[in-house]
Amino acid sequence: MIKASIVSVGNEILSGQTVDTNAAHLSTELLSIGVPVVSSYAVRDEIDAIVRGLDLASADAEVVLATGGLGPTDDDLTRQALARFLGVELELQDELLEIIEKFFVSRDRQMAEKNKIQAYIPAGAKALANIGTAPGIMAESKGKLFFALPGVPMEMKRMFEESVRPELERFAGGQAVVVKKLKCFGAGESTIAEMLGTMMQRGRNPLINCTVSSGIITLHIIATAEDKEKAEQMAEKDKKLLQSTLGELIYGVGDQSLAQIVGEKLAQQGKTIAVAESCTGGLLAKLLTDIPGSSKYFTYGWITYSNQAKISELGVPADMIQEYGAVSEQVAESMALAARKKAGTDYAIGITGIAGPTGGTEQKPVGLVYIGVDSDNGCDTRRCLFFGDRQFIRLRAAQTVLNILRLKLNI
Amino acid sequence: MIKASIVSVGNEILSGQTVDTNAAHLSTELLSIGVPVVSSYAVRDEIDAIVRGLDLASADAEVVLATGGLGPTDDDLTRQALARFLGVELELQDELLEIIEKFFVSRDRQMAEKNKIQAYIPAGAKALANIGTAPGIMAESKGKLFFALPGVPMEMKRMFEESVRPELERFAGGQAVVVKKLKCFGAGESTIAEMLGTMMQRGRNPLINCTVSSGIITLHIIATAEDKEKAEQMAEKDKKLLQSTLGELIYGVGDQSLAQIVGEKLAQQGKTIAVAESCTGGLLAKLLTDIPGSSKYFTYGWITYSNQAKISELGVPADMIQEYGAVSEQVAESMALAARKKAGTDYAIGITGIAGPTGGTEQKPVGLVYIGVDSDNGCDTRRCLFFGDRQFIRLRAAQTVLNILRLKLNI
Repeated sequence: MIKASIVSVGNEILSGQTVDTNAAHLSTELLSIGVPVVSSYAVRDEIDAIVRGLDLASADAEVVLATGGLGPTDDDLTRQALARFLGVELELQDELLEIIEKFFVSRDRQMAEKNKIQAYIPAGAKALANIGTAPGIMAESKGKLFFALPGVPMEMKRMFEESVRPELERFAGGQAVVVKKLKCFGAGESTIAEMLGTMMQRGRNPLINCTVSSGIITLHIIATAEDKEKAEQMAEKDKKLLQSTLGELIYGVGDQSLAQIVGEKLAQQGKTIAVAESCTGGLLAKLLTDIPGSSKYFTYGWITYSNQAKISELGVPADMIQEYGAVSEQVAESMALAARKKAGTDYAIGITGIAGPTGGTEQKPVGLVYIGVDSDNGCDTRRCLFFGDRQFIRLRAAQTVLNILRLKLNI
Repeated sequence: MIKASIVSVGNEILSGQTVDTNAAHLSTELLSIGVPVVSSYAVRDEIDAIVRGLDLASADAEVVLATGGLGPTDDDLTRQALARFLGVELELQDELLEIIEKFFVSRDRQMAEKNKIQAYIPAGAKALANIGTAPGIMAESKGKLFFALPGVPMEMKRMFEESVRPELERFAGGQAVVVKKLKCFGAGESTIAEMLGTMMQRGRNPLINCTVSSGIITLHIIATAEDKEKAEQMAEKDKKLLQSTLGELIYGVGDQSLAQIVGEKLAQQGKTIAVAESCTGGLLAKLLTDIPGSSKYFTYGWITYSNQAKISELGVPADMIQEYGAVSEQVAESMALAARKKAGTDYAIGITGIAGPTGGTEQKPVGLVYIGVDSDNGCDTRRCLFFGDRQFIRLRAAQTVLNILRLKLNI
């Protein structure tokens, strides 16, 4: 089995100013194509240190991925270090220079002289396209594969998908690995682990891994076999097993988000939605409109953060707020009903709660959120209590709305 | 100057399931007491791999900190690896066994037989107290200092504060480091690097580092001197120099976000704000309401995603949309004016654009965004063109609004 090693370049990592999320992202993605990361080195922005990191990494693994140090400034030294490690010179690539110049022209900006260095790559290496100005680099040496990727996470992720993944799949050869991902919401990691029991044992094939990010649990089914067809069958069999075990806790596959699933279902069923948000302050609408094409089903939103806004924009009765409080089942329902009526949509959400850190009382603690979902079937209003900081409570509240919608749209 | 190196032990780090925040935390804390971390190694839960990590780290630095692998299960192997590295045996410490037994008694839990291994430490080493069951380990060998700390972040942080920091201050003596951060928005990394010229040279003291995250540039000023007061003076002097060089490109210090600065200024000046969003779909309101206490200045928001919503909720004239298009200077201004009038706020934003990936034309390409900022000084409307994917265009549009607001509030 082919193994990988990571070299993270940058003083900002060693000074603790930046948490190295790139290494974690690459590790997850590499594992998902059957290339386990066996070691990871963080080194300073110094040519000697980077060369040593490349030495160590290439002793550990067949594939070495360096991130960072490809920018235009004097402390960006990965391309120089890679050239020295490979024993070659840096060469100016005219096509790269053109691409970089075009990047600046298209943005009506002057190219700084310093950016020219980004058009140089080690002799014999291949440049990898980037959405930013820093091209990546791929080189093959002594049967091993070396990648230098940008440190900016968005650029690094995109370059991995577009350039590294296909190269690795070609390089890995022989063994077929099929990975399927199932996305879950609605139960904790330990609950899901208990439900799965021995299926999550290490060394099992398919291997079932579990990762958690922002409250979303992802189960990775990694099947390894002598050919693609066999691996596919094994992964598919486990996918069905997990689906029957976890039922509605599974909301999607691959990299689907809750908002994407909800959006797809709304679009398929020709339904529309509006939102009226208080404590989530636009987050729910933001998640819904993150999805390309969301204008097909998302039309209206109100962020009625103040009581006055709830009254003037949604017609929530002032005496209702007086009697039950702005954070109440009644107000959540009233917001949902008004939003649906004004927007003329099939669904409308009302959401009001206490995101904290202040504003909680014994009766209405921080984390208390009321969610109203109005539709032709009437208004379904729920009381939720979330534990965590302000960001977590807001995110979990918005995700819970999306999860309720998903289940309602499961027809 | 005394240097440190970190060894992070654990398969969960190399599989990407856990982001190594321990390394970042230790790096920050160590730098703040004048002990820079010069390298960091992540290794698997295998004795050989851990010993090799300790070898590499001790070749780089005088202080080696390992985290993880001190638990009671079979894959916790750091204590065994440290003993082998030091060339000594593990010894049962009766006092440690007593402490661990008491831990379980106090929680009314049965101690598992496996936990007994946690009472063993390498001969000649010193145990460090823990709030959990895993004691830490400190050993001195060949003039170098070795620490093994638990992987659970809360336990690791507490042990660092209580046991490691005092030992290191004794061991390091003499040197003080002061770090100051300046946050910038409005120019690229290379432009800022050119403006700073030789100030960003390596080996300079104070050292000036530059990192970029989500379009925000952070400049780190790291001053090293024989005492705290001198280091503080040096850092403060450079901070002033950077401020005079970069002027309004600097929006804040430390870990401040643009929304936080805007919020602080609005609160201080007793001003209020409302937003009317189209292409950003709630993101701008979300960023503003991420900030605790934002209800003091944020009151109303409209997400008028459809043309109908712009017309019915904000009174944008239908013939204006017909004539100029929904993405136009006129509509952005009309949205801002209506939002301010309806909400009765000091400021109101209108924002309309094409976030993509589809919907662009030659005249109005993806990334075109119009921003209107209405206030007592009239409506300031701007045309912006952003490059990137949907998420980036939306984020950059919202950040640009916040930056315009910050500059308007700079009085």
